[in-house]
Amino acid sequence: MTTTISERELEFLLYEFLDTEALLQRPRYAEHSREVFDATLATARRIAEERFAPYLRQGDEQEPSFVDGRAEVMAPNGPAWRALAEAGFLNAHWDADEGGLQLPEVVLRAAMSAFYAANVGIASYAMLTIGAANLLRTFGTPALKDRYLEAMGDGRHAGTMALTEPGQGSALGDIKTTAVPQADGSYRLFGQKMFISGGDQNFTGNIVHMVLARIQDAPAGVKGISLFLVPKVLPGEQGAAGVRNDVALAGLLHKMGWRATTSTVLSFGEAGGAVGWLVGREHQGLAHMFQMMNEARIGVGVMAACIAWRGYAESLAYARERPQGRLPSCKDPLSPQVKLVAHADVRRLLLAQKVYAEGSLALCLYACSLFEDQHSHPQPQARADARRLLDVLTPVVKSWPARYGATSNDMAIQVLGGAGYTRDYPLEQLYRDQRLNMIHEGAEAIQGIDLLGRKVVMDDGAALRLFVETVHRDRALASEAGLADEAAALGAALDCLTATTAVLTERLRNDPDLALANATVYLDVFGRIAAGWIWLQQGRVAALALEGASAGRADHYRGKLQAMRYFFRWELPQTQAQCELLTRLDRSALDMQDDWFV
Amino acid sequence: MTTTISERELEFLLYEFLDTEALLQRPRYAEHSREVFDATLATARRIAEERFAPYLRQGDEQEPSFVDGRAEVMAPNGPAWRALAEAGFLNAHWDADEGGLQLPEVVLRAAMSAFYAANVGIASYAMLTIGAANLLRTFGTPALKDRYLEAMGDGRHAGTMALTEPGQGSALGDIKTTAVPQADGSYRLFGQKMFISGGDQNFTGNIVHMVLARIQDAPAGVKGISLFLVPKVLPGEQGAAGVRNDVALAGLLHKMGWRATTSTVLSFGEAGGAVGWLVGREHQGLAHMFQMMNEARIGVGVMAACIAWRGYAESLAYARERPQGRLPSCKDPLSPQVKLVAHADVRRLLLAQKVYAEGSLALCLYACSLFEDQHSHPQPQARADARRLLDVLTPVVKSWPARYGATSNDMAIQVLGGAGYTRDYPLEQLYRDQRLNMIHEGAEAIQGIDLLGRKVVMDDGAALRLFVETVHRDRALASEAGLADEAAALGAALDCLTATTAVLTERLRNDPDLALANATVYLDVFGRIAAGWIWLQQGRVAALALEGASAGRADHYRGKLQAMRYFFRWELPQTQAQCELLTRLDRSALDMQDDWFV
Repeated sequence: MTTTISERELEFLLYEFLDTEALLQRPRYAEHSREVFDATLATARRIAEERFAPYLRQGDEQEPSFVDGRAEVMAPNGPAWRALAEAGFLNAHWDADEGGLQLPEVVLRAAMSAFYAANVGIASYAMLTIGAANLLRTFGTPALKDRYLEAMGDGRHAGTMALTEPGQGSALGDIKTTAVPQADGSYRLFGQKMFISGGDQNFTGNIVHMVLARIQDAPAGVKGISLFLVPKVLPGEQGAAGVRNDVALAGLLHKMGWRATTSTVLSFGEAGGAVGWLVGREHQGLAHMFQMMNEARIGVGVMAACIAWRGYAESLAYARERPQGRLPSCKDPLSPQVKLVAHADVRRLLLAQKVYAEGSLALCLYACSLFEDQHSHPQPQARADARRLLDVLTPVVKSWPARYGATSNDMAIQVLGGAGYTRDYPLEQLYRDQRLNMIHEGAEAIQGIDLLGRKVVMDDGAALRLFVETVHRDRALASEAGLADEAAALGAALDCLTATTAVLTERLRNDPDLALANATVYLDVFGRIAAGWIWLQQGRVAALALEGASAGRADHYRGKLQAMRYFFRWELPQTQAQCELLTRLDRSALDMQDDWFV
Repeated sequence: MTTTISERELEFLLYEFLDTEALLQRPRYAEHSREVFDATLATARRIAEERFAPYLRQGDEQEPSFVDGRAEVMAPNGPAWRALAEAGFLNAHWDADEGGLQLPEVVLRAAMSAFYAANVGIASYAMLTIGAANLLRTFGTPALKDRYLEAMGDGRHAGTMALTEPGQGSALGDIKTTAVPQADGSYRLFGQKMFISGGDQNFTGNIVHMVLARIQDAPAGVKGISLFLVPKVLPGEQGAAGVRNDVALAGLLHKMGWRATTSTVLSFGEAGGAVGWLVGREHQGLAHMFQMMNEARIGVGVMAACIAWRGYAESLAYARERPQGRLPSCKDPLSPQVKLVAHADVRRLLLAQKVYAEGSLALCLYACSLFEDQHSHPQPQARADARRLLDVLTPVVKSWPARYGATSNDMAIQVLGGAGYTRDYPLEQLYRDQRLNMIHEGAEAIQGIDLLGRKVVMDDGAALRLFVETVHRDRALASEAGLADEAAALGAALDCLTATTAVLTERLRNDPDLALANATVYLDVFGRIAAGWIWLQQGRVAALALEGASAGRADHYRGKLQAMRYFFRWELPQTQAQCELLTRLDRSALDMQDDWFV
């Protein structure tokens, strides 16, 4: 068993489901080749298996500790981080003139999947650092970039996003951290941030915090928030060693899982003010930060897909080895035991995991290809469309893999039964690690409100229309490939979603509380339809390629087709009852009164 | 917040939803009164809050350790056990001439809920001991009972059930532990048992293992299994101190949760043979053991309900305290934050938890009332009916609370967001503890096959017919109480289940592998309909009692009605797509081939 996404699966997703080779036609990638892409994937896989996978359990058991005001993490974090950085995975997507390799986003995200599947607790530092560096690349002044970007690209510095505060949770408009302007153009920050992943550790010389704060006397709410770069260590004068900035580690949070990543409480300005510099424009901080949040939301989707995939692979390996009982049709108690995988319910648990894990990864890599198109597609209209489609899909890409990744990891435990509940196998840890994905980077409820309250209504519904058109186009292609039944079922579900959306958005104008009351269900319906669309495309590719395929490839294609069928028989039909509930503008939760609970 | 099921909720379930006071008319309970029942509940609550609840986290962090071949558990286990035993909770259901108080099963199970909600890891030793003692009461010889029963009733001895072996898992027909007859009528046992909960600990002087084993030269399969009592410590001669039996603790299993209960590997007969005595008849061991398994399955349902209820209460308390953001209709960023509980999606998460937790507990206590009727109802037909109904419901009572208890505890975490993922709150532990309930005492797949393959077809479908008749009778009553819409919806779902069952049982005769392939879905549909029935009855009681109720009671009734409505709007409609899938005899999982997975 491999601890990373299988080579064949990534090959299928990048080169058959997506047409990643077509990127080679774009000027930015003219120097590359498929061989370069594949070598990138292979390098990530090798490092993940050597430096990440062996420490999955250790990262869980040897939780970061608070020592003399600093966070100490387990020793293997450092070498893993350096191997990843030295292989260029922090900056390979940068332009050549920035010091990067100009590799496509989608190839890099596919490569990063190896780290997430092997050990997400170590890998998430990289995800955050890449996002923070991208923010600096987009909005930073040349001087700030000169000072920090190179070190964030080669792994000497790590990066974080510091948004949440103890008293505010998901409502960013209520953050209180204050930035006081200084005569030299810098700021001094005062306040406390909570749940800051990677907020401290002991394997990089510096940490660059991207902090949301309110400039003194700024307007209330989200319109008064600005973005600041606040380093853990300030540059020394005239090349001298750096000095600690006034950013204190106030505490470590002890989590259920994902323990190799520190989760911190940071205090800014307890000793005179933390030095920071404005990134981008005053009071535009939240809009700027959304670049990193959106990247991180896709990142969460990828991580959720990878944890689900790992659980799938682990439980499949067990089910193939372990003898257990006999089929219901066998009445001879002396006949040999069959393997677990022979039992129908175990197959269901494995097939559903395949559907969730591979469907999630395909959805996420599709989103990465949109990100790619948004930035490098030669046609302006295609760039605009990609941006619009990615906008509406981002809450789905964040949520569907997280929700069904959790279901998937639950099923992985169930395949093993009692053994799956013990720490002798990694399934229980994957289950715990996965659970964070429904929470961080915007909890499920936030994503639902973002989707229904913002994304589907923006630009007079243009993004939703584009999504619907795109799905209908792909349905037609699938029909031609012999998948008419599934294409028709998806069409019906999509029509249902469209009609439901019309009812909800109409109500949104005069009663947003009611319209958004069941937004989480709306998110689930949308996600299920998006996943059906993704599976239909995978099925189409498999159906067309099956004939004439080698035996091994044919099995892989048959698996894809069976997984697609499972989705259309088991998952998609559930959207009907959900749409009916939404269309009725169900008030059950909204009308429940606090005093009526226990 | 209380750490045990609220007094009002138990009052509602025992005296309004069920008619527990009617039991006082039966000769066995003639000496009792409602005051005695209530005092029993109050005693359990007091002990649970004093001796169990404070050690929930400690039981998780201070896992049992293997010391010199013995299991050492955290210190608070002992005093908690003794307080529970001294208050009579191990034997209060025994007849007076056995040394018991002749308390009704349903009252005791309701009382035990306090221990499960407060700290299931400590409380489960009691559940196992009660079941093992009941087995001895039913099937043991007078000599064996004389030797062990009193000590199991007063807590000097604990009890276990020892079924599973390392190589066999759920297929009991494959167990290999052997019992060799001795001249004195005893046996020597040889073999290894795994996942034995409470298999060793250091707070009782002895542990009575109820062990399934195969008498030398017994027939293969389940028909060659016998039941033995094998104590950890053998009686000394002539009143001398006991000597260790040849039962060795081979190891402790390290679980994801439920850690205050030891999970052990036991080796029998490594030094000449473990002394044991036959309980019941030769080769009838599995049938005998089913008494304990069935009790344990109801016990798992109760425990799952209680863990769900605790999560509900904890997340509700948090949601009422914590300020967070504003409603979608509020556009003023300077307005005060509202409490979490004001947000529609948080209310959904709380209302759904109420539905799952209270619905589960009501279902389980209803099952306990059937157990009660089976044994103490004055009319033979009513006893037979209760037995039959309990038979068909047992897999549902075991599974629905476990499955939706897990969903419920997942929602409890989500209410708290990032805080729920930390060990600063008990939600993450409850989520981990709860996960075991889908596995132990027969995993979900086993329950599905038991329900569809055995229970609904036994006696030519008599139990299913009885279930259907009972639900229709209760539907009519609910209709009269003004709940006609819900009663009609439940009727339609029940008709759908009946038709689906006919298709499946017809196919069972000639193609059991296909008929049972989706038995887990069948279990889920059955469970959802049973839960709908239970909620309809709770709703009926609330509807009738609402008028003229005091303000506090009226709120409780309104909550029950709203929870019922939620169930009928959100949960019951999902049965339709599931029945369609089942009626189609869907082959998706069955047809999936091993080679088609990754």
